[in-house]
Amino acid sequence: MQSWQLPEHIADILPTTARQLESAREKLLALFRVHGYELVQPPLMEYSNSLLTYIDAGLSLKTIRVVDQLSGRQLGIRADITPQVARIDAHLLSANNGINRLCYAGSVLHARPDGLLSTREPLQIGAELYGHADVAADIELIDLMLKSMAVADIGEVLLSLGHIGVFRALAEAAKLNEQQSLQLLSLMQDKDADAVAEQVRVWQLDGMWAKALTLLPSLYGSREVLAEARAKLPELSAVSKALDELEAVCNAFAEQAVHIDLSELRVDNYHTGLLYAAYGKDCHDAVARGGRYDGLGAHFGRSRPATGFSFDLRTFIGRLPAIERLPVVMVAQQDAEAAAEAVEKLRAAGQSVIIDYGVEHNGSKEVAGRLKNADGVWQVVQD
Amino acid sequence: MQSWQLPEHIADILPTTARQLESAREKLLALFRVHGYELVQPPLMEYSNSLLTYIDAGLSLKTIRVVDQLSGRQLGIRADITPQVARIDAHLLSANNGINRLCYAGSVLHARPDGLLSTREPLQIGAELYGHADVAADIELIDLMLKSMAVADIGEVLLSLGHIGVFRALAEAAKLNEQQSLQLLSLMQDKDADAVAEQVRVWQLDGMWAKALTLLPSLYGSREVLAEARAKLPELSAVSKALDELEAVCNAFAEQAVHIDLSELRVDNYHTGLLYAAYGKDCHDAVARGGRYDGLGAHFGRSRPATGFSFDLRTFIGRLPAIERLPVVMVAQQDAEAAAEAVEKLRAAGQSVIIDYGVEHNGSKEVAGRLKNADGVWQVVQD
Repeated sequence: MQSWQLPEHIADILPTTARQLESAREKLLALFRVHGYELVQPPLMEYSNSLLTYIDAGLSLKTIRVVDQLSGRQLGIRADITPQVARIDAHLLSANNGINRLCYAGSVLHARPDGLLSTREPLQIGAELYGHADVAADIELIDLMLKSMAVADIGEVLLSLGHIGVFRALAEAAKLNEQQSLQLLSLMQDKDADAVAEQVRVWQLDGMWAKALTLLPSLYGSREVLAEARAKLPELSAVSKALDELEAVCNAFAEQAVHIDLSELRVDNYHTGLLYAAYGKDCHDAVARGGRYDGLGAHFGRSRPATGFSFDLRTFIGRLPAIERLPVVMVAQQDAEAAAEAVEKLRAAGQSVIIDYGVEHNGSKEVAGRLKNADGVWQVVQD
Repeated sequence: MQSWQLPEHIADILPTTARQLESAREKLLALFRVHGYELVQPPLMEYSNSLLTYIDAGLSLKTIRVVDQLSGRQLGIRADITPQVARIDAHLLSANNGINRLCYAGSVLHARPDGLLSTREPLQIGAELYGHADVAADIELIDLMLKSMAVADIGEVLLSLGHIGVFRALAEAAKLNEQQSLQLLSLMQDKDADAVAEQVRVWQLDGMWAKALTLLPSLYGSREVLAEARAKLPELSAVSKALDELEAVCNAFAEQAVHIDLSELRVDNYHTGLLYAAYGKDCHDAVARGGRYDGLGAHFGRSRPATGFSFDLRTFIGRLPAIERLPVVMVAQQDAEAAAEAVEKLRAAGQSVIIDYGVEHNGSKEVAGRLKNADGVWQVVQD
């Protein structure tokens, strides 16, 4: 094993890509700012019981844990920033009973990668709105999510919509216990319609609910799925409310390519309602995901309606706009002192100026010219 | 213990401070760029034997370690970025035999804090130059370090200079073994002149070296210390070279307040020559530190001369320039769709526009006005 070798699913980011990411990060934070979202920076590590406030086996397995040498308690390296922001809204910003719009950009670590090609160090960027239960807030966040996608060239963006409320209402009406509910959710998440039908049959569920749950995996497609769902699903107020919310989103994004999937429930376990995701043209997995997660802050002393999205900026590597390589100006070491004023003037104007010690091989740098003294004036002279 | 409580020496960064830090970070990366330094982003975690390439008990104790679930090998969360950048210069950028100028900005984690008031999550920012052994490179980095200090209001900056080469040359000439050398270095680091004298007496060192080592803790002060050192220290070529380098730096910063201390050796164990640090007016500890660390990359297959500095941007919290709070423009929810074009125009111009759902308590936000329709034109009207 070579000493320079990195762990699997861990990578260095070299200059060209680092500048692209930095530029995209700045653009996104500026975008969030003009939409009223304020930046917060929660810490990389916390007590693990603050990071894992709800039951989520996936997140728990991804969270790296160590013993705190100061307190003896268990610390976790964050694997997701959202629970931290919920903590901030619930505790530090609790003086505001109105809406809190918050955003963040930071690295998280995963003990295990999400997939074969996933990094274990996503650069998570996201925005969240606390304090408003209406679907209007979800629409605001979806709008911001779609605008965020413009930092990268991912082709036409497809907005994918789901709603955990439909499944939960049916599971409750069918009187599934918690274990059954989780089991069926897992089959739905695997898109295994046959297994769902078989399981519902085995449990001998009441006809109407059995039929509805069996139907759920087939309720996907474009906007007309909503009418189909209204016609075919039992009349439950929670189901109607969920379908109303989905319809409101569809109406708000009339020009946008939309995909609805009532069994698309691959979510974090804290999600409670509407689910939204953005897919790129050639992306097999969503590039951004979000949804409603009312009540996540309850663990920290304040239960609030909340909705938000996030994505890993690193998945955009290779699709970010090229950054013009600024050619550098060289100044010979023996001239550096005399030319100092001219050098600082160029730098103040954004020009990169490098002192030439005469040992440099400039293979990797494009040289715009050299600073030379002509008749008492320092000028950039082409090579 | 409340669920919202954070571990000791760990803190959230809330909006006002977060924006100040973000702005300072952008300014520093832009400053590094116009000086020719290219951004790299090494990972937060690596195999611990890549992070701890040299013997440094302090860094080792600070490095959080976990077992990699994928390889079974030991991983470390980085406690210092410099060894990672040395790895990148030695391996990934090894095609360039000339000078590599690299910079970085990222969080590191410390298992234990450096001091009573230190964070365990410094935001380390730094710049490094590989491939040039001459003191001119150190001067370039000191210049950049001093310019970096301008992002914060730390009063007049004092440049502190030392050189590990003087102590090492004397220790070698006095034939100290490694253990003795480390022991004496530790006493020097503690500024315990009496203990140094006593130890040198106990070891019955040869008179000239005993005298020189005993003298070292008294060789501090302003520029004239160099002349004193030349007069009083034994004539060794390594000592002369060190003093020549210190003199070259002093001459390059003729206008700068300078403090020289030949026993100021509180350095990372990888440092090999000139040491430099910046102190603020009311700062008891250095705000930025750097020095020469030739050969750090040898562990990764390429030994190169190197010099660089870094600092924790978080130590500047409270001293960063205030950022004007942009007053927001509110647009009523029922107007949001009709006013969409006007809203996006304002946002494109950098104005923060917030949709008003009628539930907001705007205590924390200064409102510049409301977007209202007057005679078919959307205008910002003062409240």
